[in-house]
Amino acid sequence: MESRNRSGRLPVGVLAELNAVLGAEHVLTTPEALDQYSRCTIPWRTECAVVVFPASTEEVAATMRIAARHGIPVWPSSKGRNWGYATTLACTDGAMVMILERMNRILEVNEELAYAVIEPGVTYEQFNAHLAEHGHKLWIDCIDGTAQGSVIGNAIERGVGETPYGDHFGNLCGLEVVLADGEVVRTGSTREGLHTWHTHKWGVGPYLEGLFTQSNLGVVTRAGIWLMPAPECHESFVFQVSDESHMPAVVDAYRKLALGGVVTTKMHLINDFVSLTILTQRIAEPVPQGGALTDADLGMLRSKYGVAPWSCAGAIYGTRSLVREQRRLIRKALAPYGRLIFVADWQIPWIERIVRWAWKSEALRGMTQRLAGTSLPVLESAPFVHKIQRGVPTEYFVKHAYYRARRPPPVGAVHPARDNCGLIWFAPILPFTNAHLWPYVSDTKALFAAHGFDYYVAMLLMNPRSMICLMAIIYDREDPDEVERSRQLYAALLDHMCKRCYEQYRAGLAAWDTLHDDAPELKRLNDRIKAALDPANILAPGHYGVGTSEREARHPTTPDTGGQA
Amino acid sequence: MESRNRSGRLPVGVLAELNAVLGAEHVLTTPEALDQYSRCTIPWRTECAVVVFPASTEEVAATMRIAARHGIPVWPSSKGRNWGYATTLACTDGAMVMILERMNRILEVNEELAYAVIEPGVTYEQFNAHLAEHGHKLWIDCIDGTAQGSVIGNAIERGVGETPYGDHFGNLCGLEVVLADGEVVRTGSTREGLHTWHTHKWGVGPYLEGLFTQSNLGVVTRAGIWLMPAPECHESFVFQVSDESHMPAVVDAYRKLALGGVVTTKMHLINDFVSLTILTQRIAEPVPQGGALTDADLGMLRSKYGVAPWSCAGAIYGTRSLVREQRRLIRKALAPYGRLIFVADWQIPWIERIVRWAWKSEALRGMTQRLAGTSLPVLESAPFVHKIQRGVPTEYFVKHAYYRARRPPPVGAVHPARDNCGLIWFAPILPFTNAHLWPYVSDTKALFAAHGFDYYVAMLLMNPRSMICLMAIIYDREDPDEVERSRQLYAALLDHMCKRCYEQYRAGLAAWDTLHDDAPELKRLNDRIKAALDPANILAPGHYGVGTSEREARHPTTPDTGGQA
Repeated sequence: MESRNRSGRLPVGVLAELNAVLGAEHVLTTPEALDQYSRCTIPWRTECAVVVFPASTEEVAATMRIAARHGIPVWPSSKGRNWGYATTLACTDGAMVMILERMNRILEVNEELAYAVIEPGVTYEQFNAHLAEHGHKLWIDCIDGTAQGSVIGNAIERGVGETPYGDHFGNLCGLEVVLADGEVVRTGSTREGLHTWHTHKWGVGPYLEGLFTQSNLGVVTRAGIWLMPAPECHESFVFQVSDESHMPAVVDAYRKLALGGVVTTKMHLINDFVSLTILTQRIAEPVPQGGALTDADLGMLRSKYGVAPWSCAGAIYGTRSLVREQRRLIRKALAPYGRLIFVADWQIPWIERIVRWAWKSEALRGMTQRLAGTSLPVLESAPFVHKIQRGVPTEYFVKHAYYRARRPPPVGAVHPARDNCGLIWFAPILPFTNAHLWPYVSDTKALFAAHGFDYYVAMLLMNPRSMICLMAIIYDREDPDEVERSRQLYAALLDHMCKRCYEQYRAGLAAWDTLHDDAPELKRLNDRIKAALDPANILAPGHYGVGTSEREARHPTTPDTGGQA
Repeated sequence: MESRNRSGRLPVGVLAELNAVLGAEHVLTTPEALDQYSRCTIPWRTECAVVVFPASTEEVAATMRIAARHGIPVWPSSKGRNWGYATTLACTDGAMVMILERMNRILEVNEELAYAVIEPGVTYEQFNAHLAEHGHKLWIDCIDGTAQGSVIGNAIERGVGETPYGDHFGNLCGLEVVLADGEVVRTGSTREGLHTWHTHKWGVGPYLEGLFTQSNLGVVTRAGIWLMPAPECHESFVFQVSDESHMPAVVDAYRKLALGGVVTTKMHLINDFVSLTILTQRIAEPVPQGGALTDADLGMLRSKYGVAPWSCAGAIYGTRSLVREQRRLIRKALAPYGRLIFVADWQIPWIERIVRWAWKSEALRGMTQRLAGTSLPVLESAPFVHKIQRGVPTEYFVKHAYYRARRPPPVGAVHPARDNCGLIWFAPILPFTNAHLWPYVSDTKALFAAHGFDYYVAMLLMNPRSMICLMAIIYDREDPDEVERSRQLYAALLDHMCKRCYEQYRAGLAAWDTLHDDAPELKRLNDRIKAALDPANILAPGHYGVGTSEREARHPTTPDTGGQA
């Protein structure tokens, strides 16, 4: 059924053409469908006109040709789970959202060379389960976001995971891409059946794959992805720093471990508030519900949950002997500054069993907490931290998005956009040194406070030389004042970042139109390539600032009510 | 002084404009200069019309604008040392060769974050010496080609070195590029003074740096390059396999070591003939001078020099304890199949001293060879093998290019093109498995034999999943029949490779015009981008098959006489 008020914007005949190519059941224009794909957790929205679900590369190409003929902008998204940045929101109303979730085949797994070939609809959960079911001794790298996210979608957004394979774009190799005019290209491949398509990343001639990341120059419909051969041994570690004055020493020690190749995971160093957003919800705690937590309240919650001001997680991999040696080196480097705990595979079932048992009574809980030296919720998180470092995805950590929600998270699959959660990601990247890090943390913490928000910062290692300073603005979407303040804080953070000469590693809708304001030559270069490949500016115009957009994303005028449908 | 017959092709006024911008002493048109930049070691040549030497980004940009105004193709080269592929040879006669050797500043060395910022004229020798002189605890990665090669030039050709930083393009971060119209762009940088320009490879928005490698879309005038922090400990190893039937087991073992991160160097696995080309010259041996060596002669030389059918070199890095553990694991994996020798830093001066001493008499030499279990020339090579694995470049290995020369290599800096050596590189890349490797080796070995050439093959690890099967056709440039056969063998190798569905990791002049023959969509994509950035097709038209070329490279009609000028 067509929704007059929105898909009415579509030129006559488009829906009939789409129906003919995709089947009517894969072309949605109901108000419910359009609403679902017009919302994210960010305080902006744009109204799409139609949502299509192609099932193959040929259908993607045919859809692109239809859109090109009618001049309708197409916004592809693998799964629509890029919450906090943009999900499926176009820069302007009236777009055709293209969801690739029906293209979810795992086309090849090569055990000997440790890679797979997958389609964009393949999720972390599906991928991990597939390898386990077929007995492959290969691990995926997943995000600490939703298990229902797209592996390819995250990689072409250049997202970062956990393990040595955590630079997701860095581990893509060999793409199939549909261009704006429907032409299908294989990057890195000079011929049909090329044996190194998925083993040699650069191909021959100009290396083009980077063009299709954080951009709008093509729709990636297939990719090779390198996998980690399951090591003989894997241990995770958690490191808690109670005395903040040790943090500069920790940063120096960690950088040296990373540069020296002793730690190869994507360090996650999080502040106390990040931990709390996973362990509890604001409404569940005896604290005022508006504004930021006071220092006293934050201290109370830290103490209640056994959370340190800073916590860090990582892992080590290899033969038993190499892991033993890495453990010794990490202990030597970090133990002077905090509490360092290593967890081995065999301990996980025991921890899970103890936690289940301890929840049964207050007395058991107290006893367990005293013995473990931490809270039961923290102990409960350990198996998730451990498993994610070996590619086992979980919805556990996404609970942070519900921290300011007025209802508890659902028991099944989380979906913060559907559930009306308020979350904006802001993800600048800094050189991994104390001189860059702490002044920046201090400034941004003050900006959060000035706008009445708790300071959420997670430092993620992009590489041994750069660290993502990932911040979340978690706001109550049902409080118009807080929604407005969240926008103001986001604008203030962007402005401050530019003035301090940093940039984002990954950007959301509201940052795109000014992304290259200070780099007109680079903007011009991007736009020249865009004009060559998509002269009609049909494919996601304005995505990451490439091509003109005339952005019109509006503030949600009425609070979204969510609904669990 | 102008050479009428060649620079006479230049439009009127061009030289005056170039002289005004660059200074007349940096604009060469003498027959000697034009000849120097119109020759390589390959059996083709094209005649350039002028050679220019800009000293700055601004001069590069101004030169590009002059060339664009007059429609003269510009062929940039950092140092002109890309022997065996193309060096400075354009696809067509009449080009302006642009040598960037005057731009040789090391602009920054960041010790804490282990990177440097350099210009394209910086050589391996200069870079390594600079770090040593200034006491930096950072190592470069160099090639086993000439120490006078350009660090940036090799990286944008996507060359491969030795250490864990041996993927040279993979370790570039943040480029300054001059486009065909003279516009200067910084890739990966959204603003002036961006702090992560040289620490975060992908930047924000589409990742463009790959466009400027193996292509002709811009002139790279500056680059950040990641360096290896000097480890506490470094050991090299040499592994000799006498029984060829062990090779499949060696390949499997090596792939597992590489995939598991135990060996992180770019393995060099070479056949006996490769070793011999470094250790001796054909004219120095009592063997027939025409055609390929017989099995008997090859066996005699192998025995004379103590060379195994296959030899492999690599290295391990880390703390003393990690190196000890890696050594144990490598020994366990490889020792069953051959002779494995580890060499530590402290042994190098001793080996050098012993070798100097042993050369003094036949008796000392015999004694040393018996004690070392190998020939003195092989023992002499060990320090070069060791040092190159810590970024110390050498001309030692380039001696292979002189194997068929009729005069010995010069004592000082080698220069095979100047010295009239005959060498063509052919560098296909294969998945790193036995199933791919051995049939391919068998086929190509037969092709070499059928054309009367000795089989030269060095397997270089590109990454743990792909191996470059680097072959050299080393021919006597003063023998017209051999020159002709070298061309025929090259064509036969290209044809065979395409039929077997492999591609080159890096290609030379004679391979460009058919490079993407079997991938018309990819060729079209490259050309669309080329047309957008260089509509007049001024910048290196036809380089790596990008843009139209109408190639006219001719066979040298008269043998080049070389001359040591």
